[in-house]
Amino acid sequence: MKKDTIPQSGIISTGVYPSSKKIYVQGKLHNIRVAMREVSVSPTKTKSFGIEELIPNPPVTIYDTSGPFTDPTIDIDITKGIPRLREQWIKDRNDVDELNDFTSHYSNERLEDNKLDELRFEHIRKPYRAKQGCNVTQLHYARKGIITPEMEYIAIRENQRIDELMNDSDLWKQHAGHSFGANTPVKVITPEFVRDEIAKGRAIIPANINHPESEPMIIGRNFLVKINTNIGNSAVTSSIEEEVEKAVWSCRWGGDTLMDLSTGKNIHETREWIIRNCPVPVGTVPIYQALEKVNGKAEDLTWEIFRDTLIEQAEQGVDYFTIHAGVLLRYVPLTAKRVTGIVSRGGSIMAKWCLSHHKENFLYTHFEDICEIMKAYDVSFSLGDGLRPGCIADANDAAQFGELETLGELTKIAWKHDIQVMIEGPGHVPMHLIKENMEKQLEWCDEAPFYTLGPLTTDIAPGYDHITSAIGAAMIGWYGTAMLCYVTPKEHLGLPDKKDVKDGVIAYKIAAHAADLAKGHPGAQFRDNSLSKARFEFRWEDQFNLSLDPETARSYHDETLPSDGAKVAHFCSMCGPHFCSMKITQDIREYSQNEEALQKAMEDKSKEFVEAGGEIYS
Amino acid sequence: MKKDTIPQSGIISTGVYPSSKKIYVQGKLHNIRVAMREVSVSPTKTKSFGIEELIPNPPVTIYDTSGPFTDPTIDIDITKGIPRLREQWIKDRNDVDELNDFTSHYSNERLEDNKLDELRFEHIRKPYRAKQGCNVTQLHYARKGIITPEMEYIAIRENQRIDELMNDSDLWKQHAGHSFGANTPVKVITPEFVRDEIAKGRAIIPANINHPESEPMIIGRNFLVKINTNIGNSAVTSSIEEEVEKAVWSCRWGGDTLMDLSTGKNIHETREWIIRNCPVPVGTVPIYQALEKVNGKAEDLTWEIFRDTLIEQAEQGVDYFTIHAGVLLRYVPLTAKRVTGIVSRGGSIMAKWCLSHHKENFLYTHFEDICEIMKAYDVSFSLGDGLRPGCIADANDAAQFGELETLGELTKIAWKHDIQVMIEGPGHVPMHLIKENMEKQLEWCDEAPFYTLGPLTTDIAPGYDHITSAIGAAMIGWYGTAMLCYVTPKEHLGLPDKKDVKDGVIAYKIAAHAADLAKGHPGAQFRDNSLSKARFEFRWEDQFNLSLDPETARSYHDETLPSDGAKVAHFCSMCGPHFCSMKITQDIREYSQNEEALQKAMEDKSKEFVEAGGEIYS
Repeated sequence: MKKDTIPQSGIISTGVYPSSKKIYVQGKLHNIRVAMREVSVSPTKTKSFGIEELIPNPPVTIYDTSGPFTDPTIDIDITKGIPRLREQWIKDRNDVDELNDFTSHYSNERLEDNKLDELRFEHIRKPYRAKQGCNVTQLHYARKGIITPEMEYIAIRENQRIDELMNDSDLWKQHAGHSFGANTPVKVITPEFVRDEIAKGRAIIPANINHPESEPMIIGRNFLVKINTNIGNSAVTSSIEEEVEKAVWSCRWGGDTLMDLSTGKNIHETREWIIRNCPVPVGTVPIYQALEKVNGKAEDLTWEIFRDTLIEQAEQGVDYFTIHAGVLLRYVPLTAKRVTGIVSRGGSIMAKWCLSHHKENFLYTHFEDICEIMKAYDVSFSLGDGLRPGCIADANDAAQFGELETLGELTKIAWKHDIQVMIEGPGHVPMHLIKENMEKQLEWCDEAPFYTLGPLTTDIAPGYDHITSAIGAAMIGWYGTAMLCYVTPKEHLGLPDKKDVKDGVIAYKIAAHAADLAKGHPGAQFRDNSLSKARFEFRWEDQFNLSLDPETARSYHDETLPSDGAKVAHFCSMCGPHFCSMKITQDIREYSQNEEALQKAMEDKSKEFVEAGGEIYS
Repeated sequence: MKKDTIPQSGIISTGVYPSSKKIYVQGKLHNIRVAMREVSVSPTKTKSFGIEELIPNPPVTIYDTSGPFTDPTIDIDITKGIPRLREQWIKDRNDVDELNDFTSHYSNERLEDNKLDELRFEHIRKPYRAKQGCNVTQLHYARKGIITPEMEYIAIRENQRIDELMNDSDLWKQHAGHSFGANTPVKVITPEFVRDEIAKGRAIIPANINHPESEPMIIGRNFLVKINTNIGNSAVTSSIEEEVEKAVWSCRWGGDTLMDLSTGKNIHETREWIIRNCPVPVGTVPIYQALEKVNGKAEDLTWEIFRDTLIEQAEQGVDYFTIHAGVLLRYVPLTAKRVTGIVSRGGSIMAKWCLSHHKENFLYTHFEDICEIMKAYDVSFSLGDGLRPGCIADANDAAQFGELETLGELTKIAWKHDIQVMIEGPGHVPMHLIKENMEKQLEWCDEAPFYTLGPLTTDIAPGYDHITSAIGAAMIGWYGTAMLCYVTPKEHLGLPDKKDVKDGVIAYKIAAHAADLAKGHPGAQFRDNSLSKARFEFRWEDQFNLSLDPETARSYHDETLPSDGAKVAHFCSMCGPHFCSMKITQDIREYSQNEEALQKAMEDKSKEFVEAGGEIYS
């Protein structure tokens, strides 16, 4: 067992990406500044009648999840936490109280324990809670017709400045028109559209009022596909310091939300450190911590312990809770003949509790009590799939789909309380059974956003499950899943380290982006086109800088052709300097351009000649 | 530039996989022995009324592409080449001549050049060629109703002994019945089915009579999905020694065919070394070598140089040729407005030739001459997609589909000569446009097998294109593509080294296997079920050994829990020793089994009591 240590600022990854700068786009409805990353791109070198010409290429704006860590103008001090971006927005709504004390018994117990001082985040704030009779959820506001700053932030963020680019129709034709056709109408996201999607329950904005550090983001199938990353220590391994760095690191590479799945000791203190430094929404599975509180004995769990845990976490700022309220007593025996039974930790905890007491799941029987807590902080539901299949053979069975139907019922109850809901999905599913998951989920859960783990499309590649699952994730993302929970290479084998976290994030950025392309997102396509154009024109630096992982792209290139000269060379290591297919195509293009230009010049001359009277000697 | 060196036996990877042995299944129609790999699996430990019981699990038979290198009873001497498995089968057909000399001018020139002695494979054999008036292709035999030893070999190989397993219906129910239902009819491949698919042109057996070292394999959509690996040096990098080891290495991890895409010097000698040591079919793009012969000047290419190159390679034993005969003059201008023009090397060579001479592609005008050569050796066509898209924006455009239609015409011409044909496909395609490729290919090319490069589903991840493309590959494999050409992490950046080759192969084994599962292949499902069952029962060693890459799975596990004890422990590092979801589910299952057993015992007792007369005191 490792000893827990608190993070030192030096170990946290900061700094800008190559050729990139942080930019901020100003809101129009609200006084907000939306953070984005802009990658500058070098001009295209071309030849026209032997004369070299430089044609500028537009910069590429990239959706940026890295938060203040990549803005060199912001001082990062993780012992204080990152700036509280949304705090004033929340206060301005006049519907929250700042409490004098934490409501949770456990929170206070931990605060008063001097032995924990050395692990404690120093600047703990008092929590906010909805004023008596108020509902502070984004869904509540949306249904009342209010466009919150969060909603406007999201509209601007999702567009990635593609709206500005489209106003310059020449640029648009040149750089995006190839794929859309210059006249294809491109969907621009408006703040009102965001509000409407939230109001319909088709999208959620996980935004606990106690996590004002989080930059607003949306999860819904009419927006960019998002990815979640899981971190968290266990009793066997890893420390607070490592987990905070993993959190920042996963955001750096593109994680849109973060689940802290810690199961070791000091879960409470670890979570405080993470949330105070996390620029993306944080999710948890509260039953994990509740289980720790009863020393790992599922049968000893009670509603009271669970209730206190929900309040504890809501007041720390957790943005969404995975709640396994669909694991009903009658579904449990349906898993007995499975190849891999119940593999969800939450699902098996609740199954064991149900069987031990011969009672219905207390998360189900207390569901409305849970709603009462969550709406006071705007914690969103992530309705857990405790009976998800753990292998290909168990996919789409009666247990899984029984639970999904129950999650649909629970969605309606949550919506009655104006609580935002997303639905968790599998797991392990062969390709031909993936679509059915999406279709049933949309139908049974009334289009609440779907949030799936992969799914893995085969079981035979432990060590490579980021790939087995990226296949399923890309497909289900295209079919309409709003957020993809990443899987790292260590899945089924161990806890991910930093390298695994990055590998998982990149694999899932690929899956999500492939889905965005297939769904026709103009900003997604624009990035592909810019990178491909750079590739074709041998602008190696641009190719690296526009990629998901510039460092790796550059280092792979340098393994065979390390000199700086090679990065501007009109060839690559695959073909060598003598012959290169891209070079040939460029020749072909120049050749036919010259032919065209020559022909046009001849025609002009001919026309001039005729117009001048057609006399040879004038 | 590196100096070429010939391979030393020591650098070649040999040795069996963990807990595996090479087995040979005897043919019935022919005296053949089909090589496979058998993985032994430990028994399931279970408890019944507190008494431990061991229930044996059946071994898993795995399709094995590694050839003699993993059979410890065979002496490997790469300076002599591997055993010539098919040589007697070929001779027994009495339709080939052993020539006294090589037919190709270039081959003889190289043979006579003393300066090449130090690079030369020592035991070069005289080539075989069809007797005057004979056609030695597998398609020719199939159409005549002959089941060749190659065809029977393939039938046995594809079944992976699932037919034997099914005869034991108890075992079948227990281990496969979960997913198929015990009564689901499972398709067993017969030699006659293989013959029929070949005769219809729906599948091919690349099997040059001059590559008798190759173990028969089939490419067709009613068989297991295959993967191809590319290796080959360039003028910039790598040596003969490295390429031979890469060839053996790629077969070791699961490559079904191998393309040698060398473009450097000594292509001829490199190829000889590779073919003599390669247990899988070898493909090439002959125009690459032809281009070297004219010093890289596409416009200097002639039919005569190309023709001599085809014969040179056919007599060395190349099993399939990529021929870019569909790049027609009229399609070339269709690529000028693309984002990335023509990216296929072969395509751009032919485009440049066409434009330079203002003539139709000589591969098209001489297509029947090419057929005459290929049928004398049973070289299969891989009709090249020289106009495949090089980026997402260019997918499914007029140039690409124009060429595909022409490939359909050429297929019919090749079939007229009884030559086996497969069709190459893209490239870069977003997910929503993938299916159209498969549908058009099936329709226009009369169900000739499709062989695609990926496709990559996004352009923004250089360094990770094994993943961007595994997504597209899995999908198009499920839709019906017969063979997937791998992409390594170095795609677009450099030439793959050994690690990249392995990463590419594993990613593509995942894609192909996921497609096999989605298509309902029983042998594929059986391996998944066996591994998942091992995982669920904490049989860690079995989980590693049944995986695509046992070494990596084991090392990832050992990073967090290195001791041997941990490998039999009933927990994993994700949850720790205290709580584990799999452990809980096992408890649930035992609990309900005991309940059931108890109830049955009570009922039996009750029945006995009633039958005995119902007297309490007897």
